[in-house]
Amino acid sequence: MTAEKKLTELKLRLAEVSDLNNAQAVLGWDQSTFMPSGGAAARGRQMATLAKLSQEKFIDPEIGRLLDDLRPFEESLPFDSDEASLIRVTRRAYVRATKVPPEFVARMSAHSAESYQAWTEARPANDFAKVSAYLEKTLDLSREMADYFPGYEHIADPLIDFADYGMRASTVRSVFAELREQLVPIAQAITSQPPAEDAFLKQAFAEDGQIAFSSEVIKRLGFDYNRGRQDKSPHPFTTSFSMNDVRITTRVQENDLGDCLFSMIHEAGHGMYEQGVNPAYEGTPLANGTSAGVHESQSRLWENVVGRSRGFWEFFYPELQKTFPHLMAVPLDAFYRAINKVQRSLIRTDADEVTYNLHVMLRFDFELQLLEGKLAIKDLPAAWHARFETDFGIRAPDDRDGCLQDVHWFAGIIGGMFQGYTLGNILGAQFYAEALKVHPGIPEEMKQGKFDNLHTWLKENIYFPGSKYTAPELVERITGGGIQIAPYIHYLRTKYSEIYSL
Amino acid sequence: MTAEKKLTELKLRLAEVSDLNNAQAVLGWDQSTFMPSGGAAARGRQMATLAKLSQEKFIDPEIGRLLDDLRPFEESLPFDSDEASLIRVTRRAYVRATKVPPEFVARMSAHSAESYQAWTEARPANDFAKVSAYLEKTLDLSREMADYFPGYEHIADPLIDFADYGMRASTVRSVFAELREQLVPIAQAITSQPPAEDAFLKQAFAEDGQIAFSSEVIKRLGFDYNRGRQDKSPHPFTTSFSMNDVRITTRVQENDLGDCLFSMIHEAGHGMYEQGVNPAYEGTPLANGTSAGVHESQSRLWENVVGRSRGFWEFFYPELQKTFPHLMAVPLDAFYRAINKVQRSLIRTDADEVTYNLHVMLRFDFELQLLEGKLAIKDLPAAWHARFETDFGIRAPDDRDGCLQDVHWFAGIIGGMFQGYTLGNILGAQFYAEALKVHPGIPEEMKQGKFDNLHTWLKENIYFPGSKYTAPELVERITGGGIQIAPYIHYLRTKYSEIYSL
Repeated sequence: MTAEKKLTELKLRLAEVSDLNNAQAVLGWDQSTFMPSGGAAARGRQMATLAKLSQEKFIDPEIGRLLDDLRPFEESLPFDSDEASLIRVTRRAYVRATKVPPEFVARMSAHSAESYQAWTEARPANDFAKVSAYLEKTLDLSREMADYFPGYEHIADPLIDFADYGMRASTVRSVFAELREQLVPIAQAITSQPPAEDAFLKQAFAEDGQIAFSSEVIKRLGFDYNRGRQDKSPHPFTTSFSMNDVRITTRVQENDLGDCLFSMIHEAGHGMYEQGVNPAYEGTPLANGTSAGVHESQSRLWENVVGRSRGFWEFFYPELQKTFPHLMAVPLDAFYRAINKVQRSLIRTDADEVTYNLHVMLRFDFELQLLEGKLAIKDLPAAWHARFETDFGIRAPDDRDGCLQDVHWFAGIIGGMFQGYTLGNILGAQFYAEALKVHPGIPEEMKQGKFDNLHTWLKENIYFPGSKYTAPELVERITGGGIQIAPYIHYLRTKYSEIYSL
Repeated sequence: MTAEKKLTELKLRLAEVSDLNNAQAVLGWDQSTFMPSGGAAARGRQMATLAKLSQEKFIDPEIGRLLDDLRPFEESLPFDSDEASLIRVTRRAYVRATKVPPEFVARMSAHSAESYQAWTEARPANDFAKVSAYLEKTLDLSREMADYFPGYEHIADPLIDFADYGMRASTVRSVFAELREQLVPIAQAITSQPPAEDAFLKQAFAEDGQIAFSSEVIKRLGFDYNRGRQDKSPHPFTTSFSMNDVRITTRVQENDLGDCLFSMIHEAGHGMYEQGVNPAYEGTPLANGTSAGVHESQSRLWENVVGRSRGFWEFFYPELQKTFPHLMAVPLDAFYRAINKVQRSLIRTDADEVTYNLHVMLRFDFELQLLEGKLAIKDLPAAWHARFETDFGIRAPDDRDGCLQDVHWFAGIIGGMFQGYTLGNILGAQFYAEALKVHPGIPEEMKQGKFDNLHTWLKENIYFPGSKYTAPELVERITGGGIQIAPYIHYLRTKYSEIYSL
């Protein structure tokens, strides 16, 4: 067989795996949006069957042989050719998948389902004791998982790798330490001033109007409804069944204007990334966004850098006022301050863009301490409250809004779950700064409701390559260097010094 | 391995096949309800992959070996035990599936997709020439399909078997001939009288109200929304992903009250059948309705025998008038006559319950003639017009509303596609007559909006056994005999002689 034939054979096998994964994604989307309660048990079995078949098909030794045979062909091609990239990225995923025994995957997946179920009851009941045994097992399993990848520098490294390939605990730690040093004084300066008035965002806003307005917004930003749709679910998310069928979800609170609107812009950011991948990659491991951090850079860039900017609202605010006439009495400036209110708060997902990263760092540090054995699960609740008081100066009244608040550790592993959120904030600002170098008119264009130059630049530089480059490779290609916090700090300082005295 | 262990092994394999089939059903449902247009190409590939894997898993020789090994065990059990039935019904499906080469299945499926695509363009364009070559190939493939089952009495028999196992061309022919003899005079007597006035059904009826009212109706009939849901699609259908997740769809015409309402009752009839199967059969070939005819008996029974009865509307009409106050001026009697208007019409799916069967018989006869080689595809349009004029006394102005009107031949095979509709009408009346013997109060109960006795009787006798019995076995168990047209003719005569002079 020629190399071309082997590549074709590899692609056929990968397309089958991709079909199974995408089918599973459809079932997961339906489960979160429309499935009647009675459907849960059968749906769990169906998704497990698809996951098992997809895993079996992907770790088939024939794929390994094809990848081996294709090595000379790969090496004869430029690094950034589509073919070499496909072989390289597939090999990386293959090696990773074959290192973890299917028996472990099944054990992990069964445990996650039980643990998640326990958490859905424990959180509303504020009952950490109910889940601590599950969490201990999760920690054991997370360590076992890491140990399938021996030779790591830090035990969290293999787990961080799953979400943000090429990052290590040490790199993230040093980036976060640097960021923390710059961020804390800004946060302190702002939160010592009187908070912005935002009571008018908590009036009654009818669901239909919220969804219609938000849909208009994301359509104008560039989310393509011919190749995607938007539905409601208890927690907003983005999923894709192909680059031509990307689904986002939102939730609506009729007494809070921000929740639906900003979560829709956030998810549309993820969605436009998925919609913008090179169509030639469909059905291969190159077809999705490259890392948690880069994905989050897109959701946060559109949500915050664009969606909470003054220019954006110069265009959209009159439209919003037409939809909700009770905002007619609220001047643009007051509205702009309200959607950028900064405050010490308990819940990560509700946090403003300045304090948000402190929530992430706290979780990231706990993940490392738990994995290192320096913190025991039983001591987590107290440690959470203590650290929270140090970082935020406030204390959660209970564990529900303390260490029980996020689903991540209760439905997945401990390790690598959170760093992507802050990496996303940092990378989003780096990418935006690069876009501005090429198109300095972007902020002015926003005032006229024009987002093409920004969208096109992001598409060409970030979306189109899909997973061809790792996050560090992509950052290097775009910025000529590594991850840097300076653009993010510059962005925050510039924006917030106009609202508060810094 | 003991027989019990072999049975467990068989069930595990069948559950995997069932998961793949149900996953495919979820993808199909999404395709018809929510999928954005861009998703079509990937969805086709995903569904084809699931179909291929399901077929591969089902025709695995290990399933054949298990079925062989289990024969003594099966023979040691009563015929109607769950275990014996599972082995028997699975063997029947296995033998059928293994007789058709996967290469043929792929060829057929590719042809169907192309043919369907051509039909979606040819019908609106009224262009039979555009699809005649496809239809000729479909006829060839249908004959080839039949020939994988040698030893038939009529070439249509294997194809009829797929939908209505145990029926043959000769039996259907004789039932239809008998029915035709009785039906034609009734239809003629009615259509020679002035037609019922139904202009008030074509007023403006808002979509929300139509769906809300129809949902209330089917909830009261017994459709369980905790184990199912209802959405919109261009063509109404029922699909199930487990007996606890049954989806029905409807369409709404805001200038026609009947379309949404009666199609929802119709689909709810199919849906209640699927929801009512013995939960122990989940994940096996026993888990769905047993044949096209029996399935249709349930949709038609609820739609027509119940949903177009006077007693039903004595209860529901005041509710409907509340939803649509412009019906306040229309007396119940006029409404009842309008929803039972009988007329010679061109389109099968819009036909009333008296003339409907004539549409079916015409198609059934053409299927036999085409397969027998007595009618050529090129002569089908003219033959259709001629036969239509004979049977209905009217002539379609074009092929769009002639032989191009139904999708069946253009997306499947020629043979076995239509008899189930009329078998359903006949069986529905037979079953209803049996239910009345046990619960003579059913018609009175309907006037009070009570449907429990009817629903429970249907559940126990028809729904619960799933596919355990073939249609002929089921009819024998319930009525003590075979398929009989007398109850259906009696039902039609009784009902329509109250509305028209017969």
